[in-house]
Amino acid sequence: MISIIMGSQSDLATLKETIKLLKEFKVGFEVKVLSAHRTPKELARYIESAPKRGVKVFIAAAGGAAALAGVIASHTTLPVIGIPLETKSLKGLDSLLSTIQMPKGIPVGCMAIGKAGAVNAGLFALAILGITNKDIQNKLIAYRKDMRIKIKKIKIKL
Amino acid sequence: MISIIMGSQSDLATLKETIKLLKEFKVGFEVKVLSAHRTPKELARYIESAPKRGVKVFIAAAGGAAALAGVIASHTTLPVIGIPLETKSLKGLDSLLSTIQMPKGIPVGCMAIGKAGAVNAGLFALAILGITNKDIQNKLIAYRKDMRIKIKKIKIKL
Amino acid sequence: MISIIMGSQSDLATLKETIKLLKEFKVGFEVKVLSAHRTPKELARYIESAPKRGVKVFIAAAGGAAALAGVIASHTTLPVIGIPLETKSLKGLDSLLSTIQMPKGIPVGCMAIGKAGAVNAGLFALAILGITNKDIQNKLIAYRKDMRIKIKKIKIKL
Amino acid sequence: MISIIMGSQSDLATLKETIKLLKEFKVGFEVKVLSAHRTPKELARYIESAPKRGVKVFIAAAGGAAALAGVIASHTTLPVIGIPLETKSLKGLDSLLSTIQMPKGIPVGCMAIGKAGAVNAGLFALAILGITNKDIQNKLIAYRKDMRIKIKKIKIKL
Amino acid sequence: MISIIMGSQSDLATLKETIKLLKEFKVGFEVKVLSAHRTPKELARYIESAPKRGVKVFIAAAGGAAALAGVIASHTTLPVIGIPLETKSLKGLDSLLSTIQMPKGIPVGCMAIGKAGAVNAGLFALAILGITNKDIQNKLIAYRKDMRIKIKKIKIKL
Amino acid sequence: MISIIMGSQSDLATLKETIKLLKEFKVGFEVKVLSAHRTPKELARYIESAPKRGVKVFIAAAGGAAALAGVIASHTTLPVIGIPLETKSLKGLDSLLSTIQMPKGIPVGCMAIGKAGAVNAGLFALAILGITNKDIQNKLIAYRKDMRIKIKKIKIKL
Amino acid sequence: MISIIMGSQSDLATLKETIKLLKEFKVGFEVKVLSAHRTPKELARYIESAPKRGVKVFIAAAGGAAALAGVIASHTTLPVIGIPLETKSLKGLDSLLSTIQMPKGIPVGCMAIGKAGAVNAGLFALAILGITNKDIQNKLIAYRKDMRIKIKKIKIKL
Amino acid sequence: MISIIMGSQSDLATLKETIKLLKEFKVGFEVKVLSAHRTPKELARYIESAPKRGVKVFIAAAGGAAALAGVIASHTTLPVIGIPLETKSLKGLDSLLSTIQMPKGIPVGCMAIGKAGAVNAGLFALAILGITNKDIQNKLIAYRKDMRIKIKKIKIKL
Repeated sequence: MISIIMGSQSDLATLKETIKLLKEFKVGFEVKVLSAHRTPKELARYIESAPKRGVKVFIAAAGGAAALAGVIASHTTLPVIGIPLETKSLKGLDSLLSTIQMPKGIPVGCMAIGKAGAVNAGLFALAILGITNKDIQNKLIAYRKDMRIKIKKIKIKL
Repeated sequence: MISIIMGSQSDLATLKETIKLLKEFKVGFEVKVLSAHRTPKELARYIESAPKRGVKVFIAAAGGAAALAGVIASHTTLPVIGIPLETKSLKGLDSLLSTIQMPKGIPVGCMAIGKAGAVNAGLFALAILGITNKDIQNKLIAYRKDMRIKIKKIKIKL
Repeated sequence: MISIIMGSQSDLATLKETIKLLKEFKVGFEVKVLSAHRTPKELARYIESAPKRGVKVFIAAAGGAAALAGVIASHTTLPVIGIPLETKSLKGLDSLLSTIQMPKGIPVGCMAIGKAGAVNAGLFALAILGITNKDIQNKLIAYRKDMRIKIKKIKIKL
Repeated sequence: MISIIMGSQSDLATLKETIKLLKEFKVGFEVKVLSAHRTPKELARYIESAPKRGVKVFIAAAGGAAALAGVIASHTTLPVIGIPLETKSLKGLDSLLSTIQMPKGIPVGCMAIGKAGAVNAGLFALAILGITNKDIQNKLIAYRKDMRIKIKKIKIKL
Repeated sequence: MISIIMGSQSDLATLKETIKLLKEFKVGFEVKVLSAHRTPKELARYIESAPKRGVKVFIAAAGGAAALAGVIASHTTLPVIGIPLETKSLKGLDSLLSTIQMPKGIPVGCMAIGKAGAVNAGLFALAILGITNKDIQNKLIAYRKDMRIKIKKIKIKL
Repeated sequence: MISIIMGSQSDLATLKETIKLLKEFKVGFEVKVLSAHRTPKELARYIESAPKRGVKVFIAAAGGAAALAGVIASHTTLPVIGIPLETKSLKGLDSLLSTIQMPKGIPVGCMAIGKAGAVNAGLFALAILGITNKDIQNKLIAYRKDMRIKIKKIKIKL
Repeated sequence: MISIIMGSQSDLATLKETIKLLKEFKVGFEVKVLSAHRTPKELARYIESAPKRGVKVFIAAAGGAAALAGVIASHTTLPVIGIPLETKSLKGLDSLLSTIQMPKGIPVGCMAIGKAGAVNAGLFALAILGITNKDIQNKLIAYRKDMRIKIKKIKIKL
Repeated sequence: MISIIMGSQSDLATLKETIKLLKEFKVGFEVKVLSAHRTPKELARYIESAPKRGVKVFIAAAGGAAALAGVIASHTTLPVIGIPLETKSLKGLDSLLSTIQMPKGIPVGCMAIGKAGAVNAGLFALAILGITNKDIQNKLIAYRKDMRIKIKKIKIKL
């Protein structure tokens, strides 16, 4: 199972991309709004209880001083995937640097800023699960093939 | 009392500036190495116990995805002052943005990158304590006067 | 009492967040439009007279070559909190760097760019006053609790 | 097994950190110098043959217009971890953006710039393998504990 | 003949500028949608077959981790011109750095971000062909002259 | 006469370039160390008294949150030329943005970062004085001619 | 007289601010559209003939690879003031760096990006002329006084 | 023939890479020191006379407000390749943006910052000439093959 955590309810606009993808792949997931800064204890408790519910991978989306993915990683040795959200002033550069520049010892696998990152976080989590799950692996291969076919069908009118 | 927290022992090179200043001002302080990412629980416990030991202000220095000041602020309503440390690749821009771009609700008062920030974090903590401590306030006024006198004494040889 | 200073009347759009918060907390404050560049003498005079009216903390918001907070800090040893405002071209990066990169000796506690910074400047000023004011301290604790409860109540429909 | 790919032999200076870590964990790995730009066909062939040799996760380090991780990801649905290397002029910002800003559909899990990223790429690969390998998972937990103990033992002399 | 390749169909909005220009110059060209990340093999095959159809110069437009121009250059020694596309969050800085910071040995001639780059990519390809094609060279000289005349005709009403 | 002001004595290393140039041109100047943040009143007093001593143009060099040139401009309607100094962490980008992004109404003519800016500040001040001083104007023309001759004399050995 | 040059007719939207100001001050000026890249010879000829028509100061506005102000400065020893225009993708950072980072020997006095820069370019040109023109100097003092009065009249309703 | 132009003699340190490459390829070239800002007329004259001497492609290297490549392009319709040089403060970001962000109508093919750009400028010029020169084209193919062989021979000792 995949756990999707967002720092604020408004982040759902971006994470809908992740949720849609996981539904398509029919892979189990749970979604939580928990903030590294506003609900640190609830977050810690949630992460520690997650493995018991079958969580194998965490996906965390946050913006600005985006500590969420890093703080999740501080509480687990399971893979944590970070999505830096676009911000109004600095356009996500702040989210990007605060998600990715993790110190030695506590890794976060960071995705692109915004919606592309949200889709890819889902695909990356599936790629992880796909290592030992032939069904997911096959669906990923089919997903890639679909993308290729779509691109090859494009006709540019000049 | 002022609590000074650094994410890694190597940060002491910068925080020595803060320590030296607080010694000059003869204001009590304690110094801890605690990491938001490597020792999240020890950090939370330390912050929660600090008020009992008389801590009024926190100073936190960290580099890279510098979650330290923000995580401290998530555990206390006391003022938290952040010092973004210079980093090898991005020169502290990463530390700066991950310390300062805090979400609504959890403030961190951020200083300049590196040693200037370390000195000013000390002065800012003293300014806070000085509001209700006439002695500290007077020392700050004297410190400023000293700076002015030093500048006025400079002779440029042409 | 808290003094809120803005460099231009248009900055009120952002500072309304600070004002609203301080009203909620029922803490005294005064609001002034004074520019480091356009009214340097009026600004100096205002800052020097402020302590007599009971001002304990300054909050300054400015954009671009945002000298306001630093210039205020040059005239007082009271804590000065800076809010870098979003700008049209550089999105507040200019405001941020010119507010935060203060030289050794003259500290400014800098907040996030824009509205998040405006709310947090208020909260940070309250945190400072709360050190010796149990009532404010309790309200801050209640404010945090409210935030937590709101987050915990969020239901994400999948 | 983990496959470690670098764009140029000089990148070994950074990847030594990854190699050292994987040796400590006694997890199988292979190391290749293959460039997305200079040996595209050899790279494609290598990636496609890797699963047969038991490769489950790719780690790719490159600098500048760092296409390596993305090109690897274009040839496999296995997880690809990217390490953006520090560069002389732009200090790794170029490597970072060209590794992380992947388009929808082809994910790369990006680490911090340079040596911290190299260590964490190893740990992240281990975290992925650890999901279904109890031994690796236990070693990761022990590794974290060691870090905590080391930090707790630090004494700061004032 | 000039080959114009875009990573995604939506990039046509920018490349229309290039196409319009080449039509005006009555120079042969072909247009393809092929992605370095989603259709790596089709892309490689297309590039290798292009010289047989008379392609002399490649123009590639891509955004984000814009590997397209570099990957094309990895498969050919013909001149490759890159157009970094504007992106939503980082405004094309990501596209720019991932197109231009190519390693020694595999050159890409990079143009400005967005539409100016799209026009200039066409003109640059024409300048290349114009070295040995007097007709194209004369048309380029006429194009420049037209620009000059247009500018000289402008009347500013005060 | 030209007034040269630096925020700190260490800035003399850069301003030596300006001083050397003005000596060569035999144009009168005075040099002061005065800080916008550490000696605001002395600075204001100095600027207001400068016209009486014949100062026609101000040159100001400062680093970090470089308020110096802007604060000088707030006290005079004479031309103020700013030199943003290189800084350790952000390499002068902070100095540049805080010197140049002045609000409507208070202009500062900003030069390049560091030594090139220091030389050019001198030349720009001379260009201003040269408008009504034929001797300075002629020296500037001779200075340009010398530069041209030097460049034309260069022989590159292949 | 002041000469105002823009690289493209569309830049008039920004330069209207400069023109309006100079009209208010009743100072003579001329306005030209001339591009460093599209009309280099016409530009050189115009600059060289300008002194004969009484031009004392040049104001140049350009965006992107904004060579205009620098190229003007290459043809004259009169003061050249540059206005970096806001650009679509990089928001004027490109215009700013290409206007301000001039090499030793050829100075350009650079203003803020966009409209603030356009107003201040006018004021800076007036400040230069005001050194030897008492009437302009007095008008500048009056202009400043007006700004101060306007700011002092502002009432913030709470 | 290829013309190599540098803005200052010190740029030769970088351009030696280009010269060495062209010597290896036994392709004719000439090298000039000419500055867009310090010798604009000599530069214009040189460019206009170059075609008569057989110049087919220009390579221009400059740093800071790097107008050189753009100004060359303003005087010719032949292909101009720009090399943005590393700078002390901004590390070449200024050179990069002022070389690449050319306006519609005047293209410059920009390379990577510094030495990689210098090598690739040579290779790109050769690729252009190689379109109609089978010998150069074959040498380029051999050069690529050599690179591949070197990479394939690398043995990493673990």
